[in-house]
Amino acid sequence: MRSREIEIPGIVKGVQTFYDAPMRVGVYGLGRFGRFWAETLGTRFEVYGYSRTPKAIASRHFTLTTYEGLLSCDVIILCVSISAVEEVARSLARDLSPSTLVMDTCSVKTYPLEVLSRTLPDGIDILGTHPMFGPDSAREGIAGLPIVLTPCRVTEEVSSFWEETFREMGLSVHRMTAEEHDREAAYTQGITHFVGRVLGELHLEDSPIATVGYRKLLEIREQTCNDPWQLFLDLQHYNPYTRRMREDLAQAFTRILAVLDRTLDGGADPSVR
Amino acid sequence: MRSREIEIPGIVKGVQTFYDAPMRVGVYGLGRFGRFWAETLGTRFEVYGYSRTPKAIASRHFTLTTYEGLLSCDVIILCVSISAVEEVARSLARDLSPSTLVMDTCSVKTYPLEVLSRTLPDGIDILGTHPMFGPDSAREGIAGLPIVLTPCRVTEEVSSFWEETFREMGLSVHRMTAEEHDREAAYTQGITHFVGRVLGELHLEDSPIATVGYRKLLEIREQTCNDPWQLFLDLQHYNPYTRRMREDLAQAFTRILAVLDRTLDGGADPSVR
Repeated sequence: MRSREIEIPGIVKGVQTFYDAPMRVGVYGLGRFGRFWAETLGTRFEVYGYSRTPKAIASRHFTLTTYEGLLSCDVIILCVSISAVEEVARSLARDLSPSTLVMDTCSVKTYPLEVLSRTLPDGIDILGTHPMFGPDSAREGIAGLPIVLTPCRVTEEVSSFWEETFREMGLSVHRMTAEEHDREAAYTQGITHFVGRVLGELHLEDSPIATVGYRKLLEIREQTCNDPWQLFLDLQHYNPYTRRMREDLAQAFTRILAVLDRTLDGGADPSVR
Repeated sequence: MRSREIEIPGIVKGVQTFYDAPMRVGVYGLGRFGRFWAETLGTRFEVYGYSRTPKAIASRHFTLTTYEGLLSCDVIILCVSISAVEEVARSLARDLSPSTLVMDTCSVKTYPLEVLSRTLPDGIDILGTHPMFGPDSAREGIAGLPIVLTPCRVTEEVSSFWEETFREMGLSVHRMTAEEHDREAAYTQGITHFVGRVLGELHLEDSPIATVGYRKLLEIREQTCNDPWQLFLDLQHYNPYTRRMREDLAQAFTRILAVLDRTLDGGADPSVR
């Protein structure tokens, strides 16, 4: 059991419970979210960023590294698309040192945690997380924004360490099972992305006579359409509860259209509702 | 031509161009918006509020009045539902004194201005307005919020007086023809209310893991569903451009569902898009 107090000035403040040396945090995947998350964590940890594509750009908040460099980290945080988790897990399964902690950041939880527990060898710890924000929604800082923690194959002490760390970073931490998360996320994040993408199909423009509500509608479209298209597909495909959400939404749409048809025929009489 | 400088302390500041005595502004209809608008104007004018229903409650910003009291006002601002404009116009047509200015505040412009010009006698001035906000969106004040001005049967001097007045109140004033307004409003206010009402059909709740985008979605639902149901129906029925907006929205919805079906069958491959 690695547990003792270490002060590492400038890197980790407070009590270091699990890591003898400065904790090396690897971020696998430097897309829009991965880069943002690596930079955010880079203010507290020694962060190494790895990207399969060679176009990755350096940052002053983390160090670019190779696949081998990534493997030497104590913690590896997956910032890859949900649909890429299985392939990445298979490759890591062959190469990881025992006792590495693997953390995912996927916007769904049942599917990737099932894949990781099935694919990664027993010695590898698994902690599910879902930071429910990104570079757009965290433009004014991450304080108060929610992150979900779903301990999967990990000791309570490691879970608590990360829970405390995220809390100290100002995040609002919520422990949930993968099922609880997915049910809740389908009707919050899932519906928002769906509505945002539908709006993205129209050519809505800012207007001098835009109402406050319309500006919010444009913000939703902008935020969701700025995220990768793959995230949208994965959110809708890999969360078992989004199908029902879409059906509910389609029915609501149809009901409102039907009310309008009815009231148009008989004059605008609200009593028909 | 009534034009001279008058200072009426506490009621109207600046230059009074058209009204010899303190201007008496009547507000016809004290629903949610009418009451809000009467109170807002009451900080600058001597405002008299009239409601056909006897339940109207007094306010320190305006005086409750009878139908006869309303008729004695220099300006009468209609805050009735779009579908009630014709009936109200017919009654006013019989009773109004010549040279009264009638201003509507409807969320569509072609229909009510056509009704008013057809129904009110020639001596009655008509100025179309659409304050594009309400008690919810103006909760933190009206500064910077848009108002549309559609001069209909009115001198340029009267239009300019109101344009300047609204500007001094901090509003962003936009002169538009009724058609320009309705085309623009269908794809801004109209679409927002439609989406808000569809969301209102679902039982969405606040969530500890709500994303920033989801919170905006809830705000849109709240703001639009707080407005009268009749406003929603009227916005959709009396604006000639909302049918096309709803068709566009329905097609976008169907397209996104179809993309999800396609990508689900063939795996989540974004290249099919």
